[in-house]
Amino acid sequence: MEKLFIPILLGSDREGRQSEKVARFVFDQAKVYGKFDTQFLDVKDFVQTAKTGAAMPSEKSKLWSEIMKRADGLVIVSPEYNHGYPGELKLMLDQLYQEYNRKPAGICGVSAGDLGGARMVEVLRICLIELQMVPIREAVYFPKAHDLFNEKGEIRDASYKERLQKFFAELAWYADALAKARKA
Amino acid sequence: MEKLFIPILLGSDREGRQSEKVARFVFDQAKVYGKFDTQFLDVKDFVQTAKTGAAMPSEKSKLWSEIMKRADGLVIVSPEYNHGYPGELKLMLDQLYQEYNRKPAGICGVSAGDLGGARMVEVLRICLIELQMVPIREAVYFPKAHDLFNEKGEIRDASYKERLQKFFAELAWYADALAKARKA
Amino acid sequence: MEKLFIPILLGSDREGRQSEKVARFVFDQAKVYGKFDTQFLDVKDFVQTAKTGAAMPSEKSKLWSEIMKRADGLVIVSPEYNHGYPGELKLMLDQLYQEYNRKPAGICGVSAGDLGGARMVEVLRICLIELQMVPIREAVYFPKAHDLFNEKGEIRDASYKERLQKFFAELAWYADALAKARKA
Amino acid sequence: MEKLFIPILLGSDREGRQSEKVARFVFDQAKVYGKFDTQFLDVKDFVQTAKTGAAMPSEKSKLWSEIMKRADGLVIVSPEYNHGYPGELKLMLDQLYQEYNRKPAGICGVSAGDLGGARMVEVLRICLIELQMVPIREAVYFPKAHDLFNEKGEIRDASYKERLQKFFAELAWYADALAKARKA
Repeated sequence: MEKLFIPILLGSDREGRQSEKVARFVFDQAKVYGKFDTQFLDVKDFVQTAKTGAAMPSEKSKLWSEIMKRADGLVIVSPEYNHGYPGELKLMLDQLYQEYNRKPAGICGVSAGDLGGARMVEVLRICLIELQMVPIREAVYFPKAHDLFNEKGEIRDASYKERLQKFFAELAWYADALAKARKA
Repeated sequence: MEKLFIPILLGSDREGRQSEKVARFVFDQAKVYGKFDTQFLDVKDFVQTAKTGAAMPSEKSKLWSEIMKRADGLVIVSPEYNHGYPGELKLMLDQLYQEYNRKPAGICGVSAGDLGGARMVEVLRICLIELQMVPIREAVYFPKAHDLFNEKGEIRDASYKERLQKFFAELAWYADALAKARKA
Repeated sequence: MEKLFIPILLGSDREGRQSEKVARFVFDQAKVYGKFDTQFLDVKDFVQTAKTGAAMPSEKSKLWSEIMKRADGLVIVSPEYNHGYPGELKLMLDQLYQEYNRKPAGICGVSAGDLGGARMVEVLRICLIELQMVPIREAVYFPKAHDLFNEKGEIRDASYKERLQKFFAELAWYADALAKARKA
Repeated sequence: MEKLFIPILLGSDREGRQSEKVARFVFDQAKVYGKFDTQFLDVKDFVQTAKTGAAMPSEKSKLWSEIMKRADGLVIVSPEYNHGYPGELKLMLDQLYQEYNRKPAGICGVSAGDLGGARMVEVLRICLIELQMVPIREAVYFPKAHDLFNEKGEIRDASYKERLQKFFAELAWYADALAKARKA
């Protein structure tokens, strides 16, 4: 069977976003995991304006569509804003529909505070179900994002590597099971 | 491959529950669908008291465990109480864990009002993900439950039959995909 | 006591949005209610791009801040997209914080389907609590939005007028109670 | 004005519940706060069986009704089970309705893991809104409940005292504002 493809999407476009470092770390760990191909996606490259809705596909939403058509799953790394998801992430997700169907999705939450984006994870899962995705139970929470990495850009708490390997393993199990069923 | 087994659970134990008629109808339609074996489960037969927690398995929770071990998925038919699930349903679900893992779940919502239990469906899905189930996107909403059936007990709106066939088809697709992957 | 001021915000900027007609109707009914001053706000006039985050206040977000500083509450009229709120609405709400505190908010949901945006209402309430607003229990759901108004732009189901009067009465009760307490 | 009355409800009846210690600590701190009268309530004294629904008021639900009629607000201290509330807590809350109306509610979450019941807090707030309560923004999260108290039963992290004082202050602000408006 062909190697699975699961891109990693950074969900915030805010100035000074701490979630970018986290998403880069998650991307690196996905390459360490190695059992699926991956690609780094930044929401800022896919959402131009609030007007970019499903009814008006732009060049950028076409590219997003092509990537998700090929994908066997999706990882979203996103901060939590006011107990919800960033608006720009929702605008991007709402541009497509069938491209997501019957594929698993895993979420990594990022926050300045203690809870690592746990509330964003819940409400985003609700959207993902409506997109006919399978939100997996494993999630990795990155609280206190400002203090996660040292001056060299290395993560201070090495246990995140182990947690991500478990997260990727569950995601890959579903990606594989659903890819086989979609092809059958 | 062996025939799949997906029980149908009625989630309310309240006096005068309208959801029982709906659950019986869903059960009958599952037999019409015919591609999986099924069984009718009533929450009142599995939850004795508020004390029946995971730490104190009763005879009834052992039976529930045996049923879910054999099951390839679960249908929950439940009313919405105050935008949430009935307490007795939550007590029952919280008694098990591994028995649910990597199996799909579909929810039918019931309400006296216009919205068919839509809010209960959302918050129940959040629990089901934590139980490592796959909550499917299809859901069937039964609003105005008092007026759904005529004096003969027949459903007034025949379109529910079609909606349930679509619901069962999606559930069976996931049940089959995940059963194959669990065995692989 | 001075008359209360509660603006009405249309939360979608999508081409062909049906929610605009609903928001105009809600605005007209607020004037019929008459016990608070109101103003029609359109999300498209306050969110330019996905970059307009809290860290980069634009002229438009300054205006939004001035309006909410004066306001004693907020009505949001919004469609539901994939069981969540529109991204542009979330971008707009995330621009402010203190301006919202200790003021009530009421939500009217709009949908093409049968459920009138009920899921969006729930997850938006979760955000509003974090903004230190008081999400009121009354909500008005507008399902099947394409068919709500006749050729003359009149609502087909007059009962919406009554429902909105009840909604405004509850909102005004909280707006008054909290305005007095803020000033005390 | 008469002193406000805000009881504190322990929401779990599970054997070995860690949340009892937390609820006792919250109760003690409420007495330190001192600006409202309080009372310790244990869900096990109010829910007999899953059959104790609103339609069948027992002696215990009558007592619960009398307490909430007198109350100016409610504090709920509860663990999170599978990203939701305990079934017994939901059974208890679903027994009443008007007794809750136009009163604030604050939630303290308890968990064995790192997130302090944050998901339970969100879905419980959704119910509280439907009960016409005002769920306040402040919440206190008690993660790693097994390790919160030393052998003498004293809390290890004194900062919880400060957090609870802030929590009670916000709750009292709403309790006072709404009590005045209810009487007006």
